[in-house]
Amino acid sequence: MAKTTTQPLISAERNLHLGDCCFDRDMLAPDCPTPWSVRMQRLHGGKQEGVDLITIDNGVCQVRLCPTRGMGVIDATMGGLKLGWDSPVKEIVHPAFVDLQRRGRTGWLEGFTEFVVRCGLEFMGPPCKDFEHTAVGEPPATDTTLHGKIANIPASEVEIIAQTTAPYAITLRGVVHERSMYGPKLQLTAELTIVPGEQGFSLNDTITNLGGQPAEASLLYHINQGRSVLENGARLVGAFAESAPRDEGYTDKQIKQFDRYGSPEPGSPEQCYFIDLKPDRSGRVAVLLHNKKKNLGLQVGWNKKQLPLFTLWKALHDERDGYVTGLEPCTTYPMPRPTEREEGHLVILKPGASCKAELTFDLFDDKGSISKAVARL
Amino acid sequence: MAKTTTQPLISAERNLHLGDCCFDRDMLAPDCPTPWSVRMQRLHGGKQEGVDLITIDNGVCQVRLCPTRGMGVIDATMGGLKLGWDSPVKEIVHPAFVDLQRRGRTGWLEGFTEFVVRCGLEFMGPPCKDFEHTAVGEPPATDTTLHGKIANIPASEVEIIAQTTAPYAITLRGVVHERSMYGPKLQLTAELTIVPGEQGFSLNDTITNLGGQPAEASLLYHINQGRSVLENGARLVGAFAESAPRDEGYTDKQIKQFDRYGSPEPGSPEQCYFIDLKPDRSGRVAVLLHNKKKNLGLQVGWNKKQLPLFTLWKALHDERDGYVTGLEPCTTYPMPRPTEREEGHLVILKPGASCKAELTFDLFDDKGSISKAVARL
Amino acid sequence: MAKTTTQPLISAERNLHLGDCCFDRDMLAPDCPTPWSVRMQRLHGGKQEGVDLITIDNGVCQVRLCPTRGMGVIDATMGGLKLGWDSPVKEIVHPAFVDLQRRGRTGWLEGFTEFVVRCGLEFMGPPCKDFEHTAVGEPPATDTTLHGKIANIPASEVEIIAQTTAPYAITLRGVVHERSMYGPKLQLTAELTIVPGEQGFSLNDTITNLGGQPAEASLLYHINQGRSVLENGARLVGAFAESAPRDEGYTDKQIKQFDRYGSPEPGSPEQCYFIDLKPDRSGRVAVLLHNKKKNLGLQVGWNKKQLPLFTLWKALHDERDGYVTGLEPCTTYPMPRPTEREEGHLVILKPGASCKAELTFDLFDDKGSISKAVARL
Repeated sequence: MAKTTTQPLISAERNLHLGDCCFDRDMLAPDCPTPWSVRMQRLHGGKQEGVDLITIDNGVCQVRLCPTRGMGVIDATMGGLKLGWDSPVKEIVHPAFVDLQRRGRTGWLEGFTEFVVRCGLEFMGPPCKDFEHTAVGEPPATDTTLHGKIANIPASEVEIIAQTTAPYAITLRGVVHERSMYGPKLQLTAELTIVPGEQGFSLNDTITNLGGQPAEASLLYHINQGRSVLENGARLVGAFAESAPRDEGYTDKQIKQFDRYGSPEPGSPEQCYFIDLKPDRSGRVAVLLHNKKKNLGLQVGWNKKQLPLFTLWKALHDERDGYVTGLEPCTTYPMPRPTEREEGHLVILKPGASCKAELTFDLFDDKGSISKAVARL
Repeated sequence: MAKTTTQPLISAERNLHLGDCCFDRDMLAPDCPTPWSVRMQRLHGGKQEGVDLITIDNGVCQVRLCPTRGMGVIDATMGGLKLGWDSPVKEIVHPAFVDLQRRGRTGWLEGFTEFVVRCGLEFMGPPCKDFEHTAVGEPPATDTTLHGKIANIPASEVEIIAQTTAPYAITLRGVVHERSMYGPKLQLTAELTIVPGEQGFSLNDTITNLGGQPAEASLLYHINQGRSVLENGARLVGAFAESAPRDEGYTDKQIKQFDRYGSPEPGSPEQCYFIDLKPDRSGRVAVLLHNKKKNLGLQVGWNKKQLPLFTLWKALHDERDGYVTGLEPCTTYPMPRPTEREEGHLVILKPGASCKAELTFDLFDDKGSISKAVARL
Repeated sequence: MAKTTTQPLISAERNLHLGDCCFDRDMLAPDCPTPWSVRMQRLHGGKQEGVDLITIDNGVCQVRLCPTRGMGVIDATMGGLKLGWDSPVKEIVHPAFVDLQRRGRTGWLEGFTEFVVRCGLEFMGPPCKDFEHTAVGEPPATDTTLHGKIANIPASEVEIIAQTTAPYAITLRGVVHERSMYGPKLQLTAELTIVPGEQGFSLNDTITNLGGQPAEASLLYHINQGRSVLENGARLVGAFAESAPRDEGYTDKQIKQFDRYGSPEPGSPEQCYFIDLKPDRSGRVAVLLHNKKKNLGLQVGWNKKQLPLFTLWKALHDERDGYVTGLEPCTTYPMPRPTEREEGHLVILKPGASCKAELTFDLFDDKGSISKAVARL
């Protein structure tokens, strides 16, 4: 196992915040042959006043993530390939400006800009009334808000863990607490790991119930991609066993072509599909989104036991309203929590217990590697 | 057209915030014969921690506005004349401390201190349920909050635009975004322009629909004046065509004397009147509020096509509860949005379309100019 | 009367915030024989980003309080005795991260970590609908939130008042405003006074109605103690005249032993008792909580005329969920406000009127002084 060195950036326990700073290969892993850097900066102006942004550059990819917004991944760039989307929200919004209770408890949408945003942990999916839960003597989450709270909680602990020997992997680890007296005590340990020079990265997350009673949890990765991978003729590839539309009223053509993308259709409503993916022998599943020319693409892979469900969100709106598709590996469908409880989709964590989710992100910017990846799928 | 120079103060796009700073005539417009300055400072203590305040001094008037609170005008001073009021809220409250959902969705009142505060943009008026709107495939603003969101959104871009040739006008321009995924994408470009040495200023606002679908918008200027213009014997002057009380139960005397002001009446409820103003040949209307002696006054003028409606708010409460009157030029009455939709008062902005509002503020501190102004009206 | 010197730390009126700073005996009261210090620091990380924390060290006790959270007392330490509890919330949460409207309007619980937290002032107790109040022409607090707002309002003015002659008492005074247009105008002046070298401190609070109409007010001191005073065998001592369980369903044994504490019982619900205390001849009452060995204890005393009611909260939950008891002197039971109005428990403050609450906290870390105190009670 590679040796590591650790550099804290933010710590509530030690009352530490380094402010604007930059750490690089020379400082933390001088033997690494590929130069890399991790930079933290404070953002200013509008609703991003006071937000911290961290940019990891592994020499090939630049990944930006936001500790102030629950360790969400803002975007990733590799040459001409940009992962993420052009949200109408534009700014990286400080949680102090996001009121989850607004607009029928969908205020979450006022801060929604990320490439990868985690939904959960106590609840997620659409706002609903929910008067049941597993804890004894605690009030339930009676009025849940869209997609939960975790994306709008600042990380308590953030650190760089740099391997000082091969493969010199760089990990940014953040600890985010969703906790309350008479409420959840769920801890998210979110790790993003990237190897210098490689065309991709991975997320390795652990959710732990720090409370003294069993807790229900849900986790959905809202992985959002817009142009230039998404375009007329773009396609989602995967080992699809079954696909079901979330709502009534989709046309037969829409349902049949759930894996195809067209141009923006101003004023069109979103579509959602619940999809069952066939795992490979190791239990892993993957989906690949590529553009029309098949020279720009993104593959997301994960362990089906960790994230058994998959939701596809197609939001082919006017560019100004958000032209985007969401690839959503999840423990739980984004449906009302009572429904998901009944379906047995909620994760139940005993006191002290954890669950894990590990996702790989492969970035492609040439035809050859996309063809190979499609063939594998 | 005069030449200009531009000095940015805050920019989300460029990740810029100058912090405490001061720019003046010598730095930006050295040829201007009248010294002037624009100063930005960060406020501290209580709920004003982190608020930015900008003071513009044109040599005669000092105008203070708040980029953190949607470019609202806090107050304006000209010698012994002070425009604004003594709100029980006292502090200039940071939006992070204002929860619009509170107290039956009237939390807006916890931050209400401005001389001029804009109400809107997606909705304004009293809290109500509203399940209709113009967009397709987007959820409506089901539970609107008092007077909307725009006053509690920090400006994304703020800059000084100084003319370097006569008339050497100074403009403070702020861009405020009210935007959400599956919600409004309304941009307010708010300009306050003041000419060195002149006894007044103007607001020149533009609202633009940056979304891809038609959007409903509303705009009301809540122009609030307390002592010393407001007092027993103060009067509102204007070319009133018609006046209607908002509520039942006002006395005949109250209704007849809607344009007259008395002393504070502790425990009295507010009164509101909807007033139709006769425009002059250029389509402009104006109202003038003067004190009993007619030696202190404020005239507000605007284009009736831009702001066709006018609401008068009389809050002759105990001084400690707010002794104030509101002059409110608006596109839409402060009534439940479904009512205003039915009345055809909502502004409908097509994608990319804009509407404008231009208001002039004239400050009077002598009998002569008030008499002349009254005669003109 | 001792002479004093005053050192401001935070002031909204003067736009002042000293940031990280420390004042001590040598600087403010050089004649005092006992060294002492008052230190202010800004906290970082997670939800405590931007919180100010003040630590007062009188040579024997270290008391920490938080101006950002309404002058609450975070904890107090005297050698091996620690007053306070191990809340599952852990961090000292900035009010910008507390949404009181959440989770059925119990969002207050997401910031609940203090040793002493004030509940009130306009309302407190459980969330409820309340459509009545005393003011004329103002809307009522229709949907009250758990335990009110005062604990999540940052102090506007904070200063050290140091006596420069014997007994050299140190007072930290904070002014917190709970105010709104068409809402409460209640001012809390919160003083914590500690004498160098003494084993205890006092709180001296004043609530003033700054509005022009009569106002209803409520005040409850939520004094929360966990380990190591609380443990199996710990006991509450006081001159109990009567005790009534808040809820049905407690066992006879529980009701009989309301003043005894057992070990944590994972999954057990909270218990609450309303207790009538017999005052001494001066009108004062006191309760004393001690551990099993009777060598660690806390006594809280107050004037029964100021705080006529007392609530005991027993939350013998799993340590991870909060193992804690609350001693709660109050003007009003933590019951729905309409109930308390009917019972005549609400404080009615005329315009300009004040009410006071003075509490003493005695810290014991030896058997002898606890035995004596118990005997006195």
